[in-house]
Amino acid sequence: MSKIAPISGFPEYSPGQRIVEQRFLDVIRETFELHGFASIETRAIEPIERLRSQGEDADKEIYGIARLAGGDAEGMRWGLHFDLTVPFARYVLENAGTLEFPFRRYQIQKAWRGERPQEGRYREFTQADIDVVDVGTLAPHFEAEMPLVVADVFEKFPIGDFVIQVNNRKLANGFYAGLGITDVAGTLRIIDKLDKIGPDAVADLLTAAGCTATQAQACLDLAAIRTPDLSFVDQVRALGVDHPLLDEGLDALAAVIETAAANAPGRVVAALKIARGLDYYTGTVYETQLVGHEDWGAVCSGGRYDALASDGRTTYPGVGISIGVSRILGLLFGHGRLAATRSTPACVLVAVTDEASRPASTAVATALRARGIACEVAPKADKFGKQIRYADRRGIPYVWFPRDDGDQVKDIRSGDQVAADPAAWTPPAADLRPDVLMGD
Amino acid sequence: MSKIAPISGFPEYSPGQRIVEQRFLDVIRETFELHGFASIETRAIEPIERLRSQGEDADKEIYGIARLAGGDAEGMRWGLHFDLTVPFARYVLENAGTLEFPFRRYQIQKAWRGERPQEGRYREFTQADIDVVDVGTLAPHFEAEMPLVVADVFEKFPIGDFVIQVNNRKLANGFYAGLGITDVAGTLRIIDKLDKIGPDAVADLLTAAGCTATQAQACLDLAAIRTPDLSFVDQVRALGVDHPLLDEGLDALAAVIETAAANAPGRVVAALKIARGLDYYTGTVYETQLVGHEDWGAVCSGGRYDALASDGRTTYPGVGISIGVSRILGLLFGHGRLAATRSTPACVLVAVTDEASRPASTAVATALRARGIACEVAPKADKFGKQIRYADRRGIPYVWFPRDDGDQVKDIRSGDQVAADPAAWTPPAADLRPDVLMGD
Repeated sequence: MSKIAPISGFPEYSPGQRIVEQRFLDVIRETFELHGFASIETRAIEPIERLRSQGEDADKEIYGIARLAGGDAEGMRWGLHFDLTVPFARYVLENAGTLEFPFRRYQIQKAWRGERPQEGRYREFTQADIDVVDVGTLAPHFEAEMPLVVADVFEKFPIGDFVIQVNNRKLANGFYAGLGITDVAGTLRIIDKLDKIGPDAVADLLTAAGCTATQAQACLDLAAIRTPDLSFVDQVRALGVDHPLLDEGLDALAAVIETAAANAPGRVVAALKIARGLDYYTGTVYETQLVGHEDWGAVCSGGRYDALASDGRTTYPGVGISIGVSRILGLLFGHGRLAATRSTPACVLVAVTDEASRPASTAVATALRARGIACEVAPKADKFGKQIRYADRRGIPYVWFPRDDGDQVKDIRSGDQVAADPAAWTPPAADLRPDVLMGD
Repeated sequence: MSKIAPISGFPEYSPGQRIVEQRFLDVIRETFELHGFASIETRAIEPIERLRSQGEDADKEIYGIARLAGGDAEGMRWGLHFDLTVPFARYVLENAGTLEFPFRRYQIQKAWRGERPQEGRYREFTQADIDVVDVGTLAPHFEAEMPLVVADVFEKFPIGDFVIQVNNRKLANGFYAGLGITDVAGTLRIIDKLDKIGPDAVADLLTAAGCTATQAQACLDLAAIRTPDLSFVDQVRALGVDHPLLDEGLDALAAVIETAAANAPGRVVAALKIARGLDYYTGTVYETQLVGHEDWGAVCSGGRYDALASDGRTTYPGVGISIGVSRILGLLFGHGRLAATRSTPACVLVAVTDEASRPASTAVATALRARGIACEVAPKADKFGKQIRYADRRGIPYVWFPRDDGDQVKDIRSGDQVAADPAAWTPPAADLRPDVLMGD
């Protein structure tokens, strides 16, 4: 038998950490649903050639699967999905005949990538995506909607301060074109390195790629613009570049920032350096950072794409954003920032006086559960002190004592013990479920 | 590019079916937590030799995985788990130093088996398991607890009438031994075929295996015993077989039935034909059927095991039960028995009068969401009739009209339209979320 050991890149949580994760996923789901997104789940596998057709160097990331009994003859026809976007695009094409468009869906699932594991980056990880796709054309107002949903999620879960940075591909592309730069995509890829290598190195790369010093400086000036309001428009105009695509991009970004200012004030900025690596983005792009932890990189990103899902005749343009659930939790757990108040959902431990009276304790538990109070019956009729320590080790706040002369319940944190009726007693709302706390 | 097509055995739900599944999973999770079980999730993969060491013919069921870029050199070291019990046993051994015992955990995850797909049986499926494990010894009262949890789940979700059948391996083993049968395990395996091949064929197999006609008849008489109360004890005694292991089994089963009668009346029966195929069960075994659909087979089963998790020095005996979520939903969907009242979580569609006033509609949506009312803003400022049809096609019950002279909301089922304030209006509780309905 193989040695019991963790597998690198496949983290598993303790019961307490899992409570934190569940709370995060609950907040995400609840918020996605409040915004009218419907859940789907796709199978874990896709044909390998579909996975390969998306993304750069996809091969090295893909886990292929095959039935062991099938042997080499069957070969690897399928692989585990490495994101939720490729399967979603396939799901839309497969079910286009029965879905209602525009189709608003969310999807919270695991994905797998064979990359080198590092802090906040795993081989098995959970993502939470929303997308809106439509048939033929997609109204631009959907691009303004994504940051509202994300801001709503992050305001409800204690991850600390965050900022959703937004840019528009058309804006950058139009600006570069207006400057007379021909390799627009190449320029964007160089600008994307700004945070990593700094402005001087970027300027060198740009001139090496054929830009004049003036063009390179203008690109850097554009990338330096970052405003929480519409003032970015005048700042861009002041750079004196003109191009119809730039106008289009400025209008589109202004619309996103305006909607955000009205509905999620203080959470969204126009950040004109944001590029996003993936080539399929065609309009708005998003990248979210945790304030004070900018070096952790993006924890939630996405954008608009026009041609990701197409069956050759019909195109389904969309816009989406993806929360890196495992990434965020991995980073916050790794820095000791998040913890649950207990390691079990149980709010009450029902004590057992002696094994003969266990049925009375079980009856108390049944009565409490019927009223939504999670509880556990003590595993053994130990001395009460030992039963209390059992509860204490798990963080269970209350111990219930069934007694012939009337039951009592003890708050083991304060030591307060009061008479209680299992058909009527209710704990304070804050104790009913484990809570999630954020440390420094 | 590969043709877009379903993969046999890897079903995907429509958004409406997914709402039904989510409701079922919510009920399961909520109930597991009320009973004080803590959630864990394990990674999707285990070392292949660990998977192979469990279960008969495991090989043909296992999906191996390998990084495509790794090539043949890396080989397949890992496989997707085919149940949640094997990974759980490994998790317990790996984390024994930090877990609190007895450890009560639930686990709701997908598993994968390369079997031939058929109705209610898939290659990718979701299971919902609870187990209690302890160190060294496990108190028998945990065996009485499992059916209470399952009954609680199935009473809250509209799957129709169900019966949890319980037996005890010791009872059957002691009875066979008391009869003088030496191949106890072989006898059990033959009795397990009773539902499939009938009593005459079972009697033939038993005599072929070396039983006398009297022994075979006694085995069949035992298997025929099925009572909702403790009367099975006298019925077994009346068969005139004596063995200490039989006494032990009778006492243990009586304790389970007694607890069930007190806490989940009418849901549990002693059914002495229940064997369960898996060799690792050592005490109580469970098998749940949907009444009127006994031919669908078991939808929820499990039992007590004494040696599943062991590191050679310490043994962690446990008892568990597993709800076949995909199996139950697949069967009920297949027979058109379950449906959601709408295909989106949205309760309200906020109409858009013209694109210029979209911000006013978005502000209404933000206000409604802040009070927990899921809504969607109309995708296009079409004529109101068209916007109402948009809501109707998705089953969204309310359409909100922002108006300068005071907003109005229409129940599009009744046509009733009333004045409404987004800061105060609340839909009836029954409309807030999609509901799940059971048909005939």
